Amino acid sequence: MDKKKYKISIVGASGYTGSELARILVHHPNAEIVDITSESHKGKKFSDLHPQFSGILDLTLVGAEDIQLSDLDMIFLALPHGVSMGFAKKWAGSGIRIVDLSGDFRLSTAEVYEAWYKKEHVFTEGIKDAVYGMPELHADKIKNAALVANPGCYPTASILGLAPLFAAGWIDPHSVVIDAKSGLTGAGIKSSSVTHFSNVNENFKAYGISNHRHTIEIEEQLSLLLKKAVNLQFTPHLLPVDRGILATSYARPDQSEVSQEKLEDLYRNYYNGKPFIRIRKEVPSLKDVRGSNYADIYPVWDPRTKRFIVVSVIDNLVKGAAGQAVHNMNIMLDLKEITGLEHVPVQP
Amino acid sequence: MDKKKYKISIVGASGYTGSELARILVHHPNAEIVDITSESHKGKKFSDLHPQFSGILDLTLVGAEDIQLSDLDMIFLALPHGVSMGFAKKWAGSGIRIVDLSGDFRLSTAEVYEAWYKKEHVFTEGIKDAVYGMPELHADKIKNAALVANPGCYPTASILGLAPLFAAGWIDPHSVVIDAKSGLTGAGIKSSSVTHFSNVNENFKAYGISNHRHTIEIEEQLSLLLKKAVNLQFTPHLLPVDRGILATSYARPDQSEVSQEKLEDLYRNYYNGKPFIRIRKEVPSLKDVRGSNYADIYPVWDPRTKRFIVVSVIDNLVKGAAGQAVHNMNIMLDLKEITGLEHVPVQP
Amino acid sequence: MDKKKYKISIVGASGYTGSELARILVHHPNAEIVDITSESHKGKKFSDLHPQFSGILDLTLVGAEDIQLSDLDMIFLALPHGVSMGFAKKWAGSGIRIVDLSGDFRLSTAEVYEAWYKKEHVFTEGIKDAVYGMPELHADKIKNAALVANPGCYPTASILGLAPLFAAGWIDPHSVVIDAKSGLTGAGIKSSSVTHFSNVNENFKAYGISNHRHTIEIEEQLSLLLKKAVNLQFTPHLLPVDRGILATSYARPDQSEVSQEKLEDLYRNYYNGKPFIRIRKEVPSLKDVRGSNYADIYPVWDPRTKRFIVVSVIDNLVKGAAGQAVHNMNIMLDLKEITGLEHVPVQP
Amino acid sequence: MDKKKYKISIVGASGYTGSELARILVHHPNAEIVDITSESHKGKKFSDLHPQFSGILDLTLVGAEDIQLSDLDMIFLALPHGVSMGFAKKWAGSGIRIVDLSGDFRLSTAEVYEAWYKKEHVFTEGIKDAVYGMPELHADKIKNAALVANPGCYPTASILGLAPLFAAGWIDPHSVVIDAKSGLTGAGIKSSSVTHFSNVNENFKAYGISNHRHTIEIEEQLSLLLKKAVNLQFTPHLLPVDRGILATSYARPDQSEVSQEKLEDLYRNYYNGKPFIRIRKEVPSLKDVRGSNYADIYPVWDPRTKRFIVVSVIDNLVKGAAGQAVHNMNIMLDLKEITGLEHVPVQP
Repeated sequence: MDKKKYKISIVGASGYTGSELARILVHHPNAEIVDITSESHKGKKFSDLHPQFSGILDLTLVGAEDIQLSDLDMIFLALPHGVSMGFAKKWAGSGIRIVDLSGDFRLSTAEVYEAWYKKEHVFTEGIKDAVYGMPELHADKIKNAALVANPGCYPTASILGLAPLFAAGWIDPHSVVIDAKSGLTGAGIKSSSVTHFSNVNENFKAYGISNHRHTIEIEEQLSLLLKKAVNLQFTPHLLPVDRGILATSYARPDQSEVSQEKLEDLYRNYYNGKPFIRIRKEVPSLKDVRGSNYADIYPVWDPRTKRFIVVSVIDNLVKGAAGQAVHNMNIMLDLKEITGLEHVPVQP
Repeated sequence: MDKKKYKISIVGASGYTGSELARILVHHPNAEIVDITSESHKGKKFSDLHPQFSGILDLTLVGAEDIQLSDLDMIFLALPHGVSMGFAKKWAGSGIRIVDLSGDFRLSTAEVYEAWYKKEHVFTEGIKDAVYGMPELHADKIKNAALVANPGCYPTASILGLAPLFAAGWIDPHSVVIDAKSGLTGAGIKSSSVTHFSNVNENFKAYGISNHRHTIEIEEQLSLLLKKAVNLQFTPHLLPVDRGILATSYARPDQSEVSQEKLEDLYRNYYNGKPFIRIRKEVPSLKDVRGSNYADIYPVWDPRTKRFIVVSVIDNLVKGAAGQAVHNMNIMLDLKEITGLEHVPVQP
Repeated sequence: MDKKKYKISIVGASGYTGSELARILVHHPNAEIVDITSESHKGKKFSDLHPQFSGILDLTLVGAEDIQLSDLDMIFLALPHGVSMGFAKKWAGSGIRIVDLSGDFRLSTAEVYEAWYKKEHVFTEGIKDAVYGMPELHADKIKNAALVANPGCYPTASILGLAPLFAAGWIDPHSVVIDAKSGLTGAGIKSSSVTHFSNVNENFKAYGISNHRHTIEIEEQLSLLLKKAVNLQFTPHLLPVDRGILATSYARPDQSEVSQEKLEDLYRNYYNGKPFIRIRKEVPSLKDVRGSNYADIYPVWDPRTKRFIVVSVIDNLVKGAAGQAVHNMNIMLDLKEITGLEHVPVQP
Repeated sequence: MDKKKYKISIVGASGYTGSELARILVHHPNAEIVDITSESHKGKKFSDLHPQFSGILDLTLVGAEDIQLSDLDMIFLALPHGVSMGFAKKWAGSGIRIVDLSGDFRLSTAEVYEAWYKKEHVFTEGIKDAVYGMPELHADKIKNAALVANPGCYPTASILGLAPLFAAGWIDPHSVVIDAKSGLTGAGIKSSSVTHFSNVNENFKAYGISNHRHTIEIEEQLSLLLKKAVNLQFTPHLLPVDRGILATSYARPDQSEVSQEKLEDLYRNYYNGKPFIRIRKEVPSLKDVRGSNYADIYPVWDPRTKRFIVVSVIDNLVKGAAGQAVHNMNIMLDLKEITGLEHVPVQP
C-alpha cells in the first residue's frame, strides 16, 4: 500500500459537498487535509459549522487567499457555480491539480454554458482543458488532467444508467425520458422556503420541468457516446429524504432484437471491472447505496411496450459529488480506485 | 339543503379505506353509518382498531352476515380484490346500491381481469353492469348505477392528468409514459417487510415495473376516450410519506400545432364545472391536496422536445379511494357533488 | 342551529397559525372571514401564499390599517409576540372582541413578561384585562372577555395533562418535570438553519433547556390551581414531524394513598363534559389527534417509584393554537363549543 | 499496526445488530468474518437478506451447528434474549470469547432476570461470569472476560449520561427521571403494527411506562457506581427516525454547592482519555453521532430549579449495540480501542 500522504485543500467549507469531502478524506490513507477555506466563516473551526466533526476535524477555517499553494498536491473546489470558475482560473497555472465540484466546467463550450446557466463564463480556456470526471467513462483522460469537472448529481445517476445503451448504439435518440428523484441535500444547505422542513416533509414535487441545467449535461455526454445528437426529456423531483437520487429512464430501441438477457449482458460487460457499479437482479432502492460510492443499476426490457426501463440509484453527496471527486483524485494520483472509498452503505 | 339521512354500511373496517370512509361519512350531513363490518374483529369497537375515533365513532363491529339489508340505502365495499366480488354478487339483487373500492369491477371483461389479477372472477355479470366511477368522466352513468367500481388510486391520478389530451385526440397513443409515485398507505395496513418503517423511511424505490395491474385500468379508460387502442408504460414508485400520489406523465402529440396556451385552455375547458379539479399555474405538490378530495393538475408543453408533461396530484386515500367513493354516492343519491367533501387540504 | 354569520378578521396571514385559522373558519357555520391582513404580502391572494387554498379562499390580502372595524365581530391576532400587543392596544376600545394567539397577554404582569420575553410591554392594562383562554379551566371568564390570551402550544399540552392533579392538591409542587416534544411547525414558517429539512429530518434534539418562555406560563397557571407557588422543570424537544406535541410529565404526590383507579377517576371527573378532552386507556400518540382539536390524556401511577406519569398529546396548530382560538370564539359568541371544530383526526 | 486477522463468527444474520456488526467488521483491519449464521435463512447469501452488501459481503449463511469452533477467535451473538443464553451455555467451555448482544447476561442474578424478562434463565453460571461490557466503566474486567454482556441501547445512553454524577456521589438516588427517545430500529427488523411505516412516520409515542426492562439494567449499574440502591423512573419513547437515542435525564443533587463549571469539570475528568465520549458545549442532536460510535453528552445545572439535566445521544445500532460490541472485542484482543471504529458521523 502506498503510504504517501498527499496534501489537500478543500475550498468551500460550509456546504454539504465540503463536509462530505471532509468525511471521506479525513480517513483516506493517502490524504492529508491541510486547509479548509471559508470566506464567511474564517477563524471558526470546521467543527463549529459541522458539529459531527467535534474532536475529529477541528481545523481552523482560512480564507482562500491564505492557502499555501507550495504545500499542496490537490485542490477540491466545493463552491457554487459561477464562483468556482474564478478560483480555477486563478490557480490554473500553479501546477496543482484541481477537481471542481461545481457546474462550471462540465459543458462543451462557453456558449452552451451561458445559454443554460444564464451567466458569463470567465475562464473559457478552462472549459477546453477540463476533463469530464466520470471515471467509468473517462478514466484515461482523468489520469493526466489538470482540471477535472466533477459531474453533476443527476447526470451521474442518469448517464451511468444509460451509458451502455448509448455506447452500443441501441437507442432511438429522441425517445429518452429521464424521470429523476433527489433527496433534499441536492438543494443545498442554504435556508429558504424550498428547504423548510414542512415544505419537504411528507411532500413531493417536480421542479425545473423542461429546463433544468442538468439536461444539457446529460445530453452532451450521451451524444458523445452515441455519436449522434440527443434531445431528451429530463424531469427532476424533490424527495423528502436527505440523500440519494433514483433515476427512472425510459427509451425505445433503434432495432427490434432485444431481450432481457442481452440487455443484462450488455450492462455487465460494459461495467466489467468498474468497482463501484453494481448491476442488480432486484430493483435497487436509495438505502442500498446510502453513504457509499456505489451506483446500483437495474435494466429492464419490456417486450409488451418495446421499451427499456432503467433504474439507477446513487448517493447524491457521495457518488454524485464528494465520493466521485475522491475517485477522480485516486485516478489522478495513480492510487487504487477504491482507496478511502470502501464505505459500506448505511441501511437502515 | 337536503336533510335526509341515508343509511350506510361500510363493509371492511380494518384497512385504510374503511377508516377513511368513516372519517368522511361520520360528518356527512346526509349519511348515517349504521354498520361497519369486520370478520376478524367483530365484537370490538371501531375505535379499538382506529383509536383516532375514540369518542367519535365507537360502533361495535359486526360480521357481514349481520347487516340488516332492509335498513340500508348504500353499501361501501372496502375489501381486498378477490374478496369484494363475492359480496357484490351476494347483494346484487337486493336493490341496495353498492360502491366497490376494490379492483374487482374496474376492467372491461373477466378475461382481462383474470390475465392481470391472476384470479378467477366469480361475478362476470357484475363486470358488465358496473360503472367505472370516475365522476369527472362518467357522472351520467354513475347516477343510475347499481354497482359502481371505484377507480384505483394510480389510475385516478393518471387518467385525470391525461384525459383532456386523449378526449381531444391530441396524442400519439404509443408515446405515453406515466411515472407515478405513491405514499405508503397505498401498500395497505398489513405489516410486512414492504411496510416496515426502516424499509420505507429515507428510502425510495420503483416496483411493479412493466406489469403493475393499474396499467391495464389506465389503458382501457384512455382507449375509450381516444377511441383507439392505447399501449403505455406505467411505473409506480414508493414514497416515504403516508398519503398522496404524484404522477408525471409524458406524451408526444399526434400533430404539431400545440402551445402552452392552447394546452391550458384545453384543460380548463375540459374540467369546467368540476368542483374537485384545480388546473394549477404552479407545479403542485402532495401537500397541496393532502386530506382533501382535490386533484391538482399542471400541464406543460415543452417546445424543445415536442412533448407534453403533465403533473397530477391527489390524496390516494381521498380522491384516490374514499373521497371519490363518497363523491360517487353523492351523485347516485342526487346530492350536491361536494356534500361532505369540503375538507381543506392539510398543509402543513 | 344558530344561522348567524359573525364577521371575522384574521390579522397575520403568512404564518401557520394564520393559515390554520383559515382552514377552520372557512367552513365554520357561523363565521365569515371578511379580511385577512399581511403587511408584507398585501395585494397578493391568500392562496398565493398558501396554495392549498386555491379555489377555496382566494381573498386579497390587505394591510391591517385597511380593515373596516365597523364590520367586524371578532379579530384574531396571528402575529409574533411583541407585535401583537401594539394591535391589541390600538383596537382595545373598539368593542370588537379579540383573541390574541401570541404570548403577549398570557402572563400575570408586565414585569414577569419582560423578565422572560426580554422585551418591554407596551400595553400593561391589556395584561390586567386579558383572560387566559383555556376553555377547560376558564370558560366562565372567557365568555365575557374583551381580550383573550390564547395559551401557548406547550402550555396547553402541559397544563391539560397536569391540571386535575394540581386542582386536587395531590402534588408535591417542587417535584414536577415536564419533558415535552413538539413538531417542527412550532418553530414557525420562517426559513433558518433551525427549520432546514436536513437539520430536522432523521434528527431530534432538546432546546431551551432551563429557560424556555413557556416554563413561566405553565408555572403561573398551575400555581393558580394549586394555590401555592410552583417551580418546575420544563424541557422542550424538536421532533421530525410537522404537527403535534407530546408532553410526558412526572410528579410526586404530597400524600401516599394513590392508586391507578383513583387517578383515572380524578381525571374523568375533572374533565367531565369537556368535549375535546379524551382520557385514554391506552398510551396516545401524536396521530391520534392530528388535525383535530382533541387533547388525549393518559395518566399513570407507578407504585414502584411513587410517581405520577402523565402523557398528553395535542395538535400544536389546532388545540395548541387555531382550534383553541376558535373554541374561545365559540364561547365568546355563545355558540356550541364544538361548532366548526368537529374535525376527525387524520391518521394516517 | 497489528496486522493479525482474528477470526470472527456472527451468530444471527437477519436482524439489525447482525448487519451492523458486518458493516463494521467487514473493514476492520484485524477482523475476518469467517461465518455468519442464520437458522431460517441458511443457504442464502448474506447479501440476499441485506442487499446493501451486494458485492461486499456475499458469504453464504450457515446454521449455528455448522460453524467450525477450532477456527474461531471470537463469537458475536446477535440473537434475541432468551435464545442467546442457550448458545452461550453451549460454547462456554470452548475457549472462544463471546460478546453477547442480547439482554441475557446483563443483570446481576437469574432472579432479577426472571422478574423483568418473565423467562427462566438456563445458564445462571454465565450470569455470574459475564462482564458488563461498557468500556468506559469496566475496561479492566472486559480485557480478560470470556463472556461479555454488551449493554442495552437505552442503558448505554442513560448510564453514560449519568455515570459521572453517580460515581461522584452527587446525586439524590430517588430523584432520577430518564426520559429517553429511540429511533425505530430499536424495535427490531420484525414486521408488526409497531413497525408499520404509517404508525411511526409523523408520529411519536411513549411505551413501556413504568415497566421497561432496561429500567433495572440502568438501576443496577448506577447503584454500583453510587454504592447505594437506586430507584429511578425510566420512560422510553419511539421516534420517527431510523437510528439514534437521545436521553434527557433529570436529577437533584444531594448537596447544594454545584455550578455549571464544576459540573463540566466533573464530566471532562471522568471521561478523560475515553475516545468515544464527547462532552459538548452545545446541545447535541441525533445526527451528530449517526452511524458512528460516539456518545455526545451535554450536562446542565439549572440553579433556578436545583436540578441537573443531562442530554446524551448515541446511535443505538453502533454505540448502543454493534459498535460497542466491537469496542469490547478490541479491548479483549488488546487492540487499540478505536480500531475499525473511526466512522465519521453521517450528517446529513
